[in-house]
Amino acid sequence: MDRLEFLQQLGVNLDLALEAHELLRGKAQRELPGVREDKESFAHGTVTTVTILNEVGEKLMGRARGTYITIEAPPLRENNRLAHAGISNVLAAKLNGLIDNLQIGPDAPVLVIGLGNWEATPDALGPRVIEHCLVTRHLHEYAPEELQGGLRPVAALAPGVLGLTGIETAEIARGVTQRIHPSLIIVVDALAAQNLDRISTTIQMADTGISPGSGVGNQRVGITRESMGIPVIAIGVPTVVHAAVIVFEAMQQIINTLPQLGQQFAPQMMQDIARGVLAPFGGDLTVTPKEIDDLIQNTARVLAAGINQGLHPSVTPDSFATYLQ
Amino acid sequence: MDRLEFLQQLGVNLDLALEAHELLRGKAQRELPGVREDKESFAHGTVTTVTILNEVGEKLMGRARGTYITIEAPPLRENNRLAHAGISNVLAAKLNGLIDNLQIGPDAPVLVIGLGNWEATPDALGPRVIEHCLVTRHLHEYAPEELQGGLRPVAALAPGVLGLTGIETAEIARGVTQRIHPSLIIVVDALAAQNLDRISTTIQMADTGISPGSGVGNQRVGITRESMGIPVIAIGVPTVVHAAVIVFEAMQQIINTLPQLGQQFAPQMMQDIARGVLAPFGGDLTVTPKEIDDLIQNTARVLAAGINQGLHPSVTPDSFATYLQ
Amino acid sequence: MDRLEFLQQLGVNLDLALEAHELLRGKAQRELPGVREDKESFAHGTVTTVTILNEVGEKLMGRARGTYITIEAPPLRENNRLAHAGISNVLAAKLNGLIDNLQIGPDAPVLVIGLGNWEATPDALGPRVIEHCLVTRHLHEYAPEELQGGLRPVAALAPGVLGLTGIETAEIARGVTQRIHPSLIIVVDALAAQNLDRISTTIQMADTGISPGSGVGNQRVGITRESMGIPVIAIGVPTVVHAAVIVFEAMQQIINTLPQLGQQFAPQMMQDIARGVLAPFGGDLTVTPKEIDDLIQNTARVLAAGINQGLHPSVTPDSFATYLQ
Amino acid sequence: MDRLEFLQQLGVNLDLALEAHELLRGKAQRELPGVREDKESFAHGTVTTVTILNEVGEKLMGRARGTYITIEAPPLRENNRLAHAGISNVLAAKLNGLIDNLQIGPDAPVLVIGLGNWEATPDALGPRVIEHCLVTRHLHEYAPEELQGGLRPVAALAPGVLGLTGIETAEIARGVTQRIHPSLIIVVDALAAQNLDRISTTIQMADTGISPGSGVGNQRVGITRESMGIPVIAIGVPTVVHAAVIVFEAMQQIINTLPQLGQQFAPQMMQDIARGVLAPFGGDLTVTPKEIDDLIQNTARVLAAGINQGLHPSVTPDSFATYLQ
Repeated sequence: MDRLEFLQQLGVNLDLALEAHELLRGKAQRELPGVREDKESFAHGTVTTVTILNEVGEKLMGRARGTYITIEAPPLRENNRLAHAGISNVLAAKLNGLIDNLQIGPDAPVLVIGLGNWEATPDALGPRVIEHCLVTRHLHEYAPEELQGGLRPVAALAPGVLGLTGIETAEIARGVTQRIHPSLIIVVDALAAQNLDRISTTIQMADTGISPGSGVGNQRVGITRESMGIPVIAIGVPTVVHAAVIVFEAMQQIINTLPQLGQQFAPQMMQDIARGVLAPFGGDLTVTPKEIDDLIQNTARVLAAGINQGLHPSVTPDSFATYLQ
Repeated sequence: MDRLEFLQQLGVNLDLALEAHELLRGKAQRELPGVREDKESFAHGTVTTVTILNEVGEKLMGRARGTYITIEAPPLRENNRLAHAGISNVLAAKLNGLIDNLQIGPDAPVLVIGLGNWEATPDALGPRVIEHCLVTRHLHEYAPEELQGGLRPVAALAPGVLGLTGIETAEIARGVTQRIHPSLIIVVDALAAQNLDRISTTIQMADTGISPGSGVGNQRVGITRESMGIPVIAIGVPTVVHAAVIVFEAMQQIINTLPQLGQQFAPQMMQDIARGVLAPFGGDLTVTPKEIDDLIQNTARVLAAGINQGLHPSVTPDSFATYLQ
Repeated sequence: MDRLEFLQQLGVNLDLALEAHELLRGKAQRELPGVREDKESFAHGTVTTVTILNEVGEKLMGRARGTYITIEAPPLRENNRLAHAGISNVLAAKLNGLIDNLQIGPDAPVLVIGLGNWEATPDALGPRVIEHCLVTRHLHEYAPEELQGGLRPVAALAPGVLGLTGIETAEIARGVTQRIHPSLIIVVDALAAQNLDRISTTIQMADTGISPGSGVGNQRVGITRESMGIPVIAIGVPTVVHAAVIVFEAMQQIINTLPQLGQQFAPQMMQDIARGVLAPFGGDLTVTPKEIDDLIQNTARVLAAGINQGLHPSVTPDSFATYLQ
Repeated sequence: MDRLEFLQQLGVNLDLALEAHELLRGKAQRELPGVREDKESFAHGTVTTVTILNEVGEKLMGRARGTYITIEAPPLRENNRLAHAGISNVLAAKLNGLIDNLQIGPDAPVLVIGLGNWEATPDALGPRVIEHCLVTRHLHEYAPEELQGGLRPVAALAPGVLGLTGIETAEIARGVTQRIHPSLIIVVDALAAQNLDRISTTIQMADTGISPGSGVGNQRVGITRESMGIPVIAIGVPTVVHAAVIVFEAMQQIINTLPQLGQQFAPQMMQDIARGVLAPFGGDLTVTPKEIDDLIQNTARVLAAGINQGLHPSVTPDSFATYLQ
């Protein structure tokens, strides 16, 4: 039974490149052509960089050429400030690396956009990160230079979701970009994962932006270098799992328990079973841990700290204290 | 395979008496002794009253003697104000009936308590109802009689959850009750259902209060006539389904599809499968539709309107306009 | 002592054209050249239309040529739904008139922008209006025609304030406008008044947009036809009075009480006195009634209802019930 | 002209004992009998302890016997984390001293109550402090001892204001106290000051609780040892100034500028002038700096940090990181 196909046929998006890569490589039983994976570890987890090198890799992986950095750090889910600081530092360093690779200078202006819906707990990650962002662009416009503190001009926006504004976030992003001319966009979004244990433990950062259909809010229009005209770095953390994953896991456990069953499950039959389970709400069901509100709050702080440090690498973490609440 | 046993062994509570009754009667294939069920219908749905008459019924149903009224009204989930007004009216009438049965007079003071956590969307139903409650007790204390408008003294409280206060809501309720001496407590809570299609379509009202373990927030201590010293009416609406239900549904669909499997599934095996699926988050996973924030908002308004009308039956719905926003 | 000069020299903006007109005409003791004023009354108040006709009027009034409609309706501050509905109706009719005058058709798309800061009660009026706006633009993009309900495409945005985004709201408005091409912008803002009794009793609507320096948030860049490239209607309600007004009123009362004093108060002396009082907070002090949170909430509903009806005149007020919560 | 009499006759409460003491001593030109004042300074400000020793002092000061500690620290208003930490430390030490004086042991349970209204920015200080409180009581009830971390049992409540609940906060406090039996109540409230420069720069802590009429929300019923049956420590920070203070300051500045006027101002005349200015809103007007939302947020964090450290003195500031977000 093929998890990837099963979920895709149910219309469930794979937001994490790492998950897609694991599934595909598992099936192929070897590294995919056009794809490279590097792993390193740090005190609180591991960092995996999946690079899609060329068109062959793009096709196999079903996503754009670029660098997908995944930080897996279970203490992100715990109430442990030291670990959180460590994870922020790794995020900052990796973000800084991506920015350098894009040849964006230390003074170049950046626009941070938080996708998602304030009102719906698991989709509120983006707006909550914006709340903690160190915004400095207006200081450059209005304040004397000595008050700018050597900080890069950073603007931040949480424009709200389509149902509340009537406007695609991508359109707002493009419009604002054309007015304020940042050199880089960073988009922050809540993601859907395939595994429950990824919720609030995994951070994905990619220099390819946000594809249509991704995220908890299912963006209809992508936010990418193509659509924005400038580089876009996407940062996301899984906050939900699609209910179809639960159905799949249940089937998988059944097959593991009664292996002789495996052959009787035709893929189509599995689809039908899943649809039967999920139908009552049009299939659009999300699974979250009960303490999701706490998880979102912690995760937003860690992401914001990492982004703030990554965008202002010359500022020491300690002195952020004087800028931020 | 027995749904009731399956879920109970996984520690999943059956918040709806109607669901419990259906399951038990289905198993027994006849009406349960000590239990009576009455059904009536209205423009937007049906009202089922399950009455647990005596100790035999209590034992079978696993819940206290009393009246459990369930309003099933799918338009509650739709954005349809006329239907909402109709549902509020039915709720008001049924609430009024319960209050009359309890021999509580039209001027007797009432305390409305919203259980749950503001910060977590599916658990915010109680506090949101409180927000729309017509609070009048302080008018009776401080305002001249002509400003009291013939309204019953009503107080309302949304005290927050144990994790934020360190205090069981039941303790707060009991303490406040002992100070302000209401004749009746109404508790409002978000419930967990067994069926996805009950989310935001079903309202349960019971004159037995809230049992330990029930609701999205799993109250540890009940709020009942025994613990409070006065009658307690509980009003709840399912806003989540436990993930174990999804696992059960998946198994059920598989057995329906491959009936020969049924005999191979020993109950213990099913438990093990479910635990294997749900383990990564300690089993405490909730499933919600994506638009849960909108559903909660609509439902809170309908409940509040029904409670306001039910508590002040002499006021015409129209004239509430001048009291409420 | 000249109130207008006094306040202007203290850097206090006169947001209400009506107030400016009254002051100037009072000084001139006759109608100003290039300015026309028309008054009418309705059940709950009066509507005054000040029209600035030409350059002479522009210079005298210190604001752009155009129509400034002021609805004065004290029941806006009361908890009286019938009066609120009446005020919404007048607002809708007047808005509709302005839209017609601008020769904007019934199907032309409109962008509503709520200025101000969610987090600061008296400045939250704009964002709260947006919350209640009937947003339909996405239905036109994505839904089948029968679901569009004959509604004009309306988008709505509450982009946040400069200190939180680093971007002037005018820049965001301009960028979004260039992407989604509305035919009209409506901006909603909290205003500062000169008289305490204008707070939450007066609605100003002008087809000239928002000038720099106006509003509680002191927009630095205007949102006008010139800057946006399309017509801009501004709708505002006073929610604060500058503390300098209190100082002025105190002086005025003193002079009224001790008339012989009047001659001793040189304008410069009055300025110095006011600055001495206001200095400890850089002069940036606002005065609000204590119940400002309730007032904002009520006012936002009335404005949103008026805007919704004004933008969709073919929809009867009743049937809005099915679109809006 | 007597500031104290002027304000009291206008019904403006003097929330700060320090201000009352300064005014009274200024008038008397010597220390008041039955009152003692001690001053000390620290890196970021000063600490003044006014002790009302006996009935004579009570009568003169118009408030109960007890210890009133005032921390004046202008950097509280700045965005300076190091200073904030320093102020929290002083608050913690002083709180700890009061607790010791009350002979309340290190393991004795404490209930922290945040007065005020979430929805109105300047009155939201109390609820916001509660949000950051380290709540531990439920760990003592439910968690194994090793998870309790040697922390004192602390419960926290932000019950909302009379207009929303229909219940005096004092009644809720008393009711909860009688259920959970804390050894001490700490109430946190937003105060009104007489001087603009006290807003968000001054912290008052008193072992006498909260008197009726005090605070931004004008509690009608006090929260004191008498009403609660256990010691009550009140902690407050001025967030508003009554508009009458602005009127007074204006008069004062005028008299300073034109000294010959002083004799003409009869006290009654001054009252009449002030009432004339403030009448349009029933006199209930508050003055706040524009950035009050930021000030409240910072101040709430500093207070919460001080309270957390003061209640758990054996925990090092660093290790709070692992308990708190």
